[in-house]
Amino acid sequence: MSEFSLIHTHFKHLTAPHQHTVLGIGDDCAISNIPPNSQLVSCVDTLVAGRHFVHETSPHAIAYKSVAVNLSDLASMGATPYAILVGLSLPKSMANDDFCQAFAEGLAVACTPFGVELIGGDTTSSPILTISVTALGFVPHGQAITRQGACVGDVVCVSDTVGLASLALHGILDDLNGDGHANRPPESLPEKLRQAMQYPAPQVALGKRLIGFANSMIDISDGLGQDLGHILTASNVGAVIELDAIPSHALLDALPHAQKWQHQINGGDDYQLCLTMTKQNFKKFNQSYPNSIFAIGEIVAQKGLTLMNDHQKVDLTVQGWAHF
Amino acid sequence: MSEFSLIHTHFKHLTAPHQHTVLGIGDDCAISNIPPNSQLVSCVDTLVAGRHFVHETSPHAIAYKSVAVNLSDLASMGATPYAILVGLSLPKSMANDDFCQAFAEGLAVACTPFGVELIGGDTTSSPILTISVTALGFVPHGQAITRQGACVGDVVCVSDTVGLASLALHGILDDLNGDGHANRPPESLPEKLRQAMQYPAPQVALGKRLIGFANSMIDISDGLGQDLGHILTASNVGAVIELDAIPSHALLDALPHAQKWQHQINGGDDYQLCLTMTKQNFKKFNQSYPNSIFAIGEIVAQKGLTLMNDHQKVDLTVQGWAHF
Repeated sequence: MSEFSLIHTHFKHLTAPHQHTVLGIGDDCAISNIPPNSQLVSCVDTLVAGRHFVHETSPHAIAYKSVAVNLSDLASMGATPYAILVGLSLPKSMANDDFCQAFAEGLAVACTPFGVELIGGDTTSSPILTISVTALGFVPHGQAITRQGACVGDVVCVSDTVGLASLALHGILDDLNGDGHANRPPESLPEKLRQAMQYPAPQVALGKRLIGFANSMIDISDGLGQDLGHILTASNVGAVIELDAIPSHALLDALPHAQKWQHQINGGDDYQLCLTMTKQNFKKFNQSYPNSIFAIGEIVAQKGLTLMNDHQKVDLTVQGWAHF
Repeated sequence: MSEFSLIHTHFKHLTAPHQHTVLGIGDDCAISNIPPNSQLVSCVDTLVAGRHFVHETSPHAIAYKSVAVNLSDLASMGATPYAILVGLSLPKSMANDDFCQAFAEGLAVACTPFGVELIGGDTTSSPILTISVTALGFVPHGQAITRQGACVGDVVCVSDTVGLASLALHGILDDLNGDGHANRPPESLPEKLRQAMQYPAPQVALGKRLIGFANSMIDISDGLGQDLGHILTASNVGAVIELDAIPSHALLDALPHAQKWQHQINGGDDYQLCLTMTKQNFKKFNQSYPNSIFAIGEIVAQKGLTLMNDHQKVDLTVQGWAHF
C-alpha cells in the first residue's frame, strides 16, 4: 500500500486550513466548529470513469469537476461551502506521482476560490476510477433555499446559459450509449465548450445572494426540464417556460431549434441555478444585481411543465440526463 | 436510470428522522442543526468489492460494514454518531429489488442502534461495487479524543479481542493476493469468526465514556501494531506491549504463538478501540466500568513499539493491513 501512502502526501496540505477546522486530515476524523446561528448543509456526489466523464478526461479536470458538482449543490441551497471529504478509488496504473499531482491540483483549483478545505479522505485501489466527494457548508439558521417554496405567480429564472455542456459532450461522442471513450479528445472542442463541460463554475456567490429573495432553487445537473420538474413536484405547482427566453450562445443558436432545445431542456451538466421568486423580488434583485439572473417563465397552478415558443406550445419530451 | 430511481425508494425512509435533521434525503443537500456546545466530527471510508470484502459477501453484510467502519472512526474520537451520506456505485446486475432491499436492510441494521439517520446519498452505475460512506457526529466542544495525547507512563488499553477478523479472512482465502473471491464461503466459518469479520460492532458507547479519561485513542482497522503506531507517532512516544495481555479467544489460542500474534498485531478489521490513559484514570475507569477496557502495556519515552512475551522481546515485523 506504499503507493497509497504516497498519494496521501499529495493531499495533506493541499488546501489552506479553514478557520472553522479544529483538526483536518491525519486522524480518524476531522473536527470542525460550526459558526454561530448556522446550520450544516451536506451532500454527496459520485463520479465514475466512463459514465460521468469520458476516459480521456485529464486527472485535473476530473478532480475539479468532482468538487465543483458538489459545491454547486451547496450553492443551490444558498449555503457557504466549508469543506470536502474525498473517497478516491483508483486503478494501480494511476497510483503514481503524475496522476496524483494533476488530480490534487484539480481539487485545489476547485476548492481555493471558495476557501474550501479538504478535511478528510480515503484512498483505495479499484479497477475503475471512482470519486465520491462529500461537501459540507453552512447556511444562516432557517434561511436555506429548498425545492419546496415555489408559489403561483413566481418568476422562474436561470443564472446563465444552459445547453453548452450537453453540446460539448455530443461533440466528442458519436453515441451516448458507447463505452465511455471519446471519439474525439475533449481538447479538440472549442474552448468555450470544453470549459462548459469540464470546468463548470459553481454559482456560490449568487446562491448566497439569493437568500431572502428566492422562494425555491435547484442546480441544473440533470437538465433544466428535469431539475425544474423537481421544484414543481416538491412545490406542488406547474410552470410555463418561454424557450426563447433561456439564455443561449451563438454555438447553440447555430443549431436547428429542435436540437438547441434538446440541449437546453434535456442536456445536463451545466450547473447553473434554476430558481423562482416573486415578481417584486425579481425587480428588487435585478436592481441590486443586474444581469445575474434571467427570467424564463412563470409558476402556474396547473401541474406540469409547459414549453412555449412564439405563442405556440412546443411538444418536447422532458427526460432525465442519462449518463452515457 | 429508472432502476436507480427505484433504488432511491429503498433508501428514502430507511432510517428514523433524527431530531437534529431539518431536511433529509430528497433535496440537493441535507440541512442539520448542530447541538449547542458541540463540534462536528466527520470521516469517510470507501469499500471496494474484491478488495475490502470478498465478492461472495452478502449485500446485507457489505452495507452493514460500510457503515460500521465509519461509526467506529467516530467512536474513536469519543463522538456521538448522527448521520451518514452514502455514495453507492453498483453494477447494473445488482440494480434490482433483491440486492437493494438486502443492502438497505444492512444499512438500517448498522444505523438504527445508534439513532443514525441516512441524510444523503448518490447512486450511480459502475462496473464494480463501491460504497463510499461519510459519517457525521457530534462531540462536546474541545473534548474529542485524538491520536496526539499519549503521555509517558500511560496505560495502553484495548476494548476487546483483536485478531478474530484476520483469522476469519484467512479461513476463507488461501491467498491474500488473490482475485477477491473466497475459496470457501463466509457462511462456512464458525459463527464467532463470521460475525467478527462481517458484523463488527462499533464501540460507540465505550468511546463516549472514555471522554475525560483517555489521553489518546484510535480504532483498530489496519492492525493493532500499525494503529497503535499512529498514536505513538502523533504523540512522539513509544510503547511496550505484553503480547499475553492482549484479550484473546480460544480460536486464536489454539494457534502456534507466532500465528496468533500475527493475527493480533498485524491483522486488521477488528474495529476495537486502542487507547491510552494515566494509571490513575485507568483505576477510576475500571471501578466505574469494569471489564470494558484491558491493559496491554505502557507508553514509554523511547520511540517505537516493543513487543514482549515472558520477559523476552519478541521479534515480529509490524506491517500494515494490506487489503487483499
